[in-house]
Amino acid sequence: MNDPGYTDLGFAKVDTDRLRRTGDPEVVFGQGKTPDEVVAIVATLAAASGDRPVLVTRAGPRTVAALLDRWPDATVDGTTVVVGAFAPPAGTVAVVSAGTSDAPVAAEAALTVRACGAGVVRVTDVGVAGLHRVLAARPVLDDADVVVVVAGMEGALPSVVGGLVGTPVVAVPTSVGYGASFGGLSALLGMLNSCAPGVVVCNIDNGFGAGVFAARVARSIAGGRP
Amino acid sequence: MNDPGYTDLGFAKVDTDRLRRTGDPEVVFGQGKTPDEVVAIVATLAAASGDRPVLVTRAGPRTVAALLDRWPDATVDGTTVVVGAFAPPAGTVAVVSAGTSDAPVAAEAALTVRACGAGVVRVTDVGVAGLHRVLAARPVLDDADVVVVVAGMEGALPSVVGGLVGTPVVAVPTSVGYGASFGGLSALLGMLNSCAPGVVVCNIDNGFGAGVFAARVARSIAGGRP
Amino acid sequence: MNDPGYTDLGFAKVDTDRLRRTGDPEVVFGQGKTPDEVVAIVATLAAASGDRPVLVTRAGPRTVAALLDRWPDATVDGTTVVVGAFAPPAGTVAVVSAGTSDAPVAAEAALTVRACGAGVVRVTDVGVAGLHRVLAARPVLDDADVVVVVAGMEGALPSVVGGLVGTPVVAVPTSVGYGASFGGLSALLGMLNSCAPGVVVCNIDNGFGAGVFAARVARSIAGGRP
Amino acid sequence: MNDPGYTDLGFAKVDTDRLRRTGDPEVVFGQGKTPDEVVAIVATLAAASGDRPVLVTRAGPRTVAALLDRWPDATVDGTTVVVGAFAPPAGTVAVVSAGTSDAPVAAEAALTVRACGAGVVRVTDVGVAGLHRVLAARPVLDDADVVVVVAGMEGALPSVVGGLVGTPVVAVPTSVGYGASFGGLSALLGMLNSCAPGVVVCNIDNGFGAGVFAARVARSIAGGRP
Amino acid sequence: MNDPGYTDLGFAKVDTDRLRRTGDPEVVFGQGKTPDEVVAIVATLAAASGDRPVLVTRAGPRTVAALLDRWPDATVDGTTVVVGAFAPPAGTVAVVSAGTSDAPVAAEAALTVRACGAGVVRVTDVGVAGLHRVLAARPVLDDADVVVVVAGMEGALPSVVGGLVGTPVVAVPTSVGYGASFGGLSALLGMLNSCAPGVVVCNIDNGFGAGVFAARVARSIAGGRP
Amino acid sequence: MNDPGYTDLGFAKVDTDRLRRTGDPEVVFGQGKTPDEVVAIVATLAAASGDRPVLVTRAGPRTVAALLDRWPDATVDGTTVVVGAFAPPAGTVAVVSAGTSDAPVAAEAALTVRACGAGVVRVTDVGVAGLHRVLAARPVLDDADVVVVVAGMEGALPSVVGGLVGTPVVAVPTSVGYGASFGGLSALLGMLNSCAPGVVVCNIDNGFGAGVFAARVARSIAGGRP
Amino acid sequence: MNDPGYTDLGFAKVDTDRLRRTGDPEVVFGQGKTPDEVVAIVATLAAASGDRPVLVTRAGPRTVAALLDRWPDATVDGTTVVVGAFAPPAGTVAVVSAGTSDAPVAAEAALTVRACGAGVVRVTDVGVAGLHRVLAARPVLDDADVVVVVAGMEGALPSVVGGLVGTPVVAVPTSVGYGASFGGLSALLGMLNSCAPGVVVCNIDNGFGAGVFAARVARSIAGGRP
Amino acid sequence: MNDPGYTDLGFAKVDTDRLRRTGDPEVVFGQGKTPDEVVAIVATLAAASGDRPVLVTRAGPRTVAALLDRWPDATVDGTTVVVGAFAPPAGTVAVVSAGTSDAPVAAEAALTVRACGAGVVRVTDVGVAGLHRVLAARPVLDDADVVVVVAGMEGALPSVVGGLVGTPVVAVPTSVGYGASFGGLSALLGMLNSCAPGVVVCNIDNGFGAGVFAARVARSIAGGRP
Repeated sequence: MNDPGYTDLGFAKVDTDRLRRTGDPEVVFGQGKTPDEVVAIVATLAAASGDRPVLVTRAGPRTVAALLDRWPDATVDGTTVVVGAFAPPAGTVAVVSAGTSDAPVAAEAALTVRACGAGVVRVTDVGVAGLHRVLAARPVLDDADVVVVVAGMEGALPSVVGGLVGTPVVAVPTSVGYGASFGGLSALLGMLNSCAPGVVVCNIDNGFGAGVFAARVARSIAGGRP
Repeated sequence: MNDPGYTDLGFAKVDTDRLRRTGDPEVVFGQGKTPDEVVAIVATLAAASGDRPVLVTRAGPRTVAALLDRWPDATVDGTTVVVGAFAPPAGTVAVVSAGTSDAPVAAEAALTVRACGAGVVRVTDVGVAGLHRVLAARPVLDDADVVVVVAGMEGALPSVVGGLVGTPVVAVPTSVGYGASFGGLSALLGMLNSCAPGVVVCNIDNGFGAGVFAARVARSIAGGRP
Repeated sequence: MNDPGYTDLGFAKVDTDRLRRTGDPEVVFGQGKTPDEVVAIVATLAAASGDRPVLVTRAGPRTVAALLDRWPDATVDGTTVVVGAFAPPAGTVAVVSAGTSDAPVAAEAALTVRACGAGVVRVTDVGVAGLHRVLAARPVLDDADVVVVVAGMEGALPSVVGGLVGTPVVAVPTSVGYGASFGGLSALLGMLNSCAPGVVVCNIDNGFGAGVFAARVARSIAGGRP
Repeated sequence: MNDPGYTDLGFAKVDTDRLRRTGDPEVVFGQGKTPDEVVAIVATLAAASGDRPVLVTRAGPRTVAALLDRWPDATVDGTTVVVGAFAPPAGTVAVVSAGTSDAPVAAEAALTVRACGAGVVRVTDVGVAGLHRVLAARPVLDDADVVVVVAGMEGALPSVVGGLVGTPVVAVPTSVGYGASFGGLSALLGMLNSCAPGVVVCNIDNGFGAGVFAARVARSIAGGRP
Repeated sequence: MNDPGYTDLGFAKVDTDRLRRTGDPEVVFGQGKTPDEVVAIVATLAAASGDRPVLVTRAGPRTVAALLDRWPDATVDGTTVVVGAFAPPAGTVAVVSAGTSDAPVAAEAALTVRACGAGVVRVTDVGVAGLHRVLAARPVLDDADVVVVVAGMEGALPSVVGGLVGTPVVAVPTSVGYGASFGGLSALLGMLNSCAPGVVVCNIDNGFGAGVFAARVARSIAGGRP
Repeated sequence: MNDPGYTDLGFAKVDTDRLRRTGDPEVVFGQGKTPDEVVAIVATLAAASGDRPVLVTRAGPRTVAALLDRWPDATVDGTTVVVGAFAPPAGTVAVVSAGTSDAPVAAEAALTVRACGAGVVRVTDVGVAGLHRVLAARPVLDDADVVVVVAGMEGALPSVVGGLVGTPVVAVPTSVGYGASFGGLSALLGMLNSCAPGVVVCNIDNGFGAGVFAARVARSIAGGRP
Repeated sequence: MNDPGYTDLGFAKVDTDRLRRTGDPEVVFGQGKTPDEVVAIVATLAAASGDRPVLVTRAGPRTVAALLDRWPDATVDGTTVVVGAFAPPAGTVAVVSAGTSDAPVAAEAALTVRACGAGVVRVTDVGVAGLHRVLAARPVLDDADVVVVVAGMEGALPSVVGGLVGTPVVAVPTSVGYGASFGGLSALLGMLNSCAPGVVVCNIDNGFGAGVFAARVARSIAGGRP
Repeated sequence: MNDPGYTDLGFAKVDTDRLRRTGDPEVVFGQGKTPDEVVAIVATLAAASGDRPVLVTRAGPRTVAALLDRWPDATVDGTTVVVGAFAPPAGTVAVVSAGTSDAPVAAEAALTVRACGAGVVRVTDVGVAGLHRVLAARPVLDDADVVVVVAGMEGALPSVVGGLVGTPVVAVPTSVGYGASFGGLSALLGMLNSCAPGVVVCNIDNGFGAGVFAARVARSIAGGRP
């Protein structure tokens, strides 16, 4: 019963023209669905969505395989899959992640950004315990329109990034950790209490939400706001 | 011991030139400081900040009075005060609040936006229990570059707004409520779990953080990103 | 050890005559019981309950199959099964659900209402992020004697429904969500803090409890209160 | 910032005709407002509401005195005040409270019921640790259309009442208690987990919400549903 | 890593003579141990403990079978097993449980009492929603030296029992429930906040601890305190 | 609203003869009541209770003074007052407390024990960080019928005491501490998870409850169980 | 009741010779004591402690004034006071604090270190949002034997410091913050989940505990371990 | 997604020379990785780390077997494995554990200490409920440079140890327990609130972090601080 059910969110039907215009993708939340179910939903959406891509999040290995079997040129990163061609990127989102375990959430954010029509730059392995990497990434962060920072455990990376650059920062806590991380609560609270102004926060592991938000902002900055 | 102490955050000193260029204000967190202390800090900052305004948040009635006594043409809204002239607004942020009790936090967000150099449109009293007001505000929300939504209790307003418009939504939970609102926890969780994509969240009662973030985005969209 | 054990709640034995008179069903909580155990209990109850139906909640797929194998004309919706004929409906309960993932809980509520002798109207897929569907459902909600609203994630739907109509609203939070939904806690708190008066709340995923309550009210309004 | 601000909830303005027809009162949440502010709001509402009463909740002693000074024939019970005449009661709500400390919340529920046009019977001091009183109250509970049960500490009374009678039960947890009652959390969880079916729950100390809900149901049962 | 490891608690070795004198059993916490491991430990303890019984708690079905295979005349109730003969009972403990799902914890308490040398009377299925059964059990409760009350969900039964009789009450919350029972937290808080004086509480599902405590008290009252 | 209202708990009226026979006192919860109110209630109870004492808990300094003014030979210890003569003690309860800040709760437990007709031995300042004092107290603990252990902060003392002696231990967590003690939660959880069997727990700061329970047990062991 | 009561902790009496040898101070927890009480306790301890200093923590302004009135050459920093001369410092502890609001806790840590016989270097205002200050402090941190890091809000500073240097880090979360900082819980969890190895944590606002621990380590490294 | 990913923490690359000089090991967090993945990572690290050992934590049985298959002379204790030779020990760390279930965490701490170049003494089975064992271990604890105390359930052992000796104590709460231990929260809170000064705390089950910290301190005391 843990499916937020993006496919049945009324949004996509409220204003279909605006969606086509903006290039927002159709979305399928893969968790809790069988590979066959996901393939069937994607097929339906792909037929109806014209040249917009279809985004699948939280796809397990068997679902990823089933999607690639049907759409061999789908784009896959971790548990996220995009079926269909991306629109040309408008604006730039930097997706920064702290540890290798945060990669699936960062991938979800990055592919969502691309599926929403904005461009992406990935920066990985920049934990706060190794400041030189954060400092080295500064030019990339300065050039981006928005920075998405993905981190688990103590969730300190958004504060460090937010103190370095004036770019808006969207923080995504992950459930990476154990013990007193309480399934991502520690990272979530850390990010909400960031001492750096200009940091906003998404739900735990919600790379999709961060990606949609960041892409909207980046597209608008690039002049593409509908 | 509840002063996040914006004035001593290194940010303002990291890159002074960028701050002057962007028009970001100096900030004083008024809570826990005496009126005399706040006036003294503001005087120092105002002398050093050139034509940038100085923003005071969480100012009690006596602090507000002391600030107005010293700077009669300061801008005051609720517990937020701005000393000095605003820069011409670049971009537009809509600040939407649910109930009259949410007004101080909405005012903090709105004056912060203005002090950060972006323009503001206020929409008040649009609780989810009275949908007609939300629907009536749609044109304003559509025209804005970013929407800041301030709400306490169940914190449902950002979901409703996020379902209506494609504009990026920054949600601010407030501590308005009693019993199982647990000091704003209910609104915070509600906003983090919003079923509308494109909603990001700030700390409870953190109108300042939402304002800084929204102003950065709006200024960038308006072409003012440094 | 998670079986509330409806079958051994003394209620059914306190006042057997009243139960027969009102048409309240016997209930079996299926979770944690084997298919064989459930079939055996249902058989015993069906033999003793005269013309009242027997309600099974939280039945897994194998239990559903076992029940249909024994009672081919049982009524099944999701994880809820009713063995025996329904009484003619007295009064009307509208069961409204937000997303497709909330369907099993909504089905539990709806079949419970019917098994308790009241009539049901289902309204599905009316999330707050798609207000037009909520608005379209208003006539149905106005005509009902009670509205049961089932929603997960931020749990905002009861507030929207409670603001639209004067009908009493029974809200059921579901465990649908992830991360900071904390297993339904977010939806539960949201509903308890609803800004719309006239909203009451049940335990997380407790469609059964909402159904019993709503049916009692609807039957009374229809003149059937014993 | 803890004012849910009933007066600015859009509900009253959505459908004025229905409100007049049903007899629902205007409501002022007194907490956090000065006596003068409350008097001014009540005066405005009373002038505009025709023959409907105006309800004030969470009124401190000085606010109660100020209201009585202006409207000497106002009805007062604990921290709840009603200005104006009640409509003739339609239907009956039994308001049951456990201890003397729960009295203010029970009074809020009871006066709300009356202000909403339904009739009230009060039953006091029926804690679960003295079962004979609960048993003695059974005829009253059986005769009511709805029972509102107000209790703090372990919140066990709704389960006992719900096991005794088939009448719908609306439970209101109170913040009465100390230590591990955690401000009413213990009573709230106890009521949500009630083993008696047909029990629904309101926010901690929310006698107003229980009263509105119960009155709507009682009026409908009595034939007064608009 | 969830084994409290009764066997390695120093207690048994602190004062071996006293243990033999009092008849306290050796204890093995079965959870997380393989059947073979449990059998081996029990064999060792049984050889060393003279005529005192060996108590095994939290034994899964395969462990129970392995124990019965080795000691065919062992006493088994639910997940609790006693190897060896009981001492003649001194004093009486009444173990009362609310629902059928609470039975394994009640069995753990009851067998522990017996293994600790006191006598036991079991009373089952006396939920607060069926008061007549509680009232019917009053003579048994009055005659006992101590009452152990085992209940999940809202945990209201100890309050009702504590209000009926003057016998000391030891309450054991169970993890029976779902949703807002939060794994037994609801029952635990309810029991800690009991409005009936003379109620003390054990950890969730800790029938063993309640049994040891109650047996010590009952033996002392019966004159057997060493 | 934090008054559990012992005076209106039905217990005292359920079985008046038993109360007189056992010597249980009438009880007034002083917190939240004015000195005048407490004096008036005590006067009424004292007149009706024959030779049984009247116990007042949570009495502030002004209430203590008012009680001593009216009853100069009342017994006072910290915030607990007993008006009237104690019955001759039956059985012995040892009340052990960890730090000087735990003294008021220990006093409430000790005077309650005396008012309930059992004898008391006090042992103070035996924190776990000074084991030699705990060890020195062992003969007293061994001689008692029940041990009440009062401790705040990490709440470790009951485990140490429970490992030393076979006497039943009733643990009372106190709200003494700061930071992560979370108002006594740390001590409460520590005591519930005690690795020493035979430890049961009361609500935070509930010296009264522990006293009633311990006195009942001690009186029974001494042969005084009614 | 919030006094952990350092003065009555048995520790000081366990092994008086060792204390004199190590130079550990006597300690008085000032919170909850009147200025007169603190002065009296300090006078007694000073008379008995020979040349060891007496440390007072959590002293309010009036207590500080009373101590200075009696001992004009006492050392005061924020809410911490030391009466008597310090021993010559052995080893070096660096006390690093993030914001100005964290100063009182940092002062408590620093004066405790000195009173325990180790040397102190203070580094202030090095929030993670201004990395250049942290980097500038690196030589000082490298030279220290132990680093105590004091920070509120998101508590990220210990991770950054722990990633920069190999020196052992003792982290002290403070209650500085608001909203979702939940009284220091956010900082506490952040520090417990630090991604930098070699970081250990104290209770919220517990500068005293960090100081004692760090001084013991520094003295040992300096060759002064008894 | 629960891998803190020690291998990708920038620390090891920040200052490679210092690491070689200090003898700190490379670390692999085994949980969530396949045996093949772990073997491959260890092989890479072992090739690059010269004579420093490689430490693997949280290795399941199959991973342990795979590591032993490749490196037959690896050191294994519970779920911790060290590949490569240890440096000669500098300084002494005593690792004390409470129950047999705490052994894997104690082993992780002990092997980490050795892999970090310090010496280790193990003390096992010294629960607070059997004080004689704690007292017997005092000479070992006094001789150590640092004491690591590993305990679950109520987490009381660090307070007892901290009261006995003046050696710095690093406490590690474990997730051992059930019910109200809430996955180690009870032990964590108990240790944070320890009444014994000089106790610092690590994350739940974080033997690795305690080992790194303790080894750094012990090496420094032994004169080996780089």
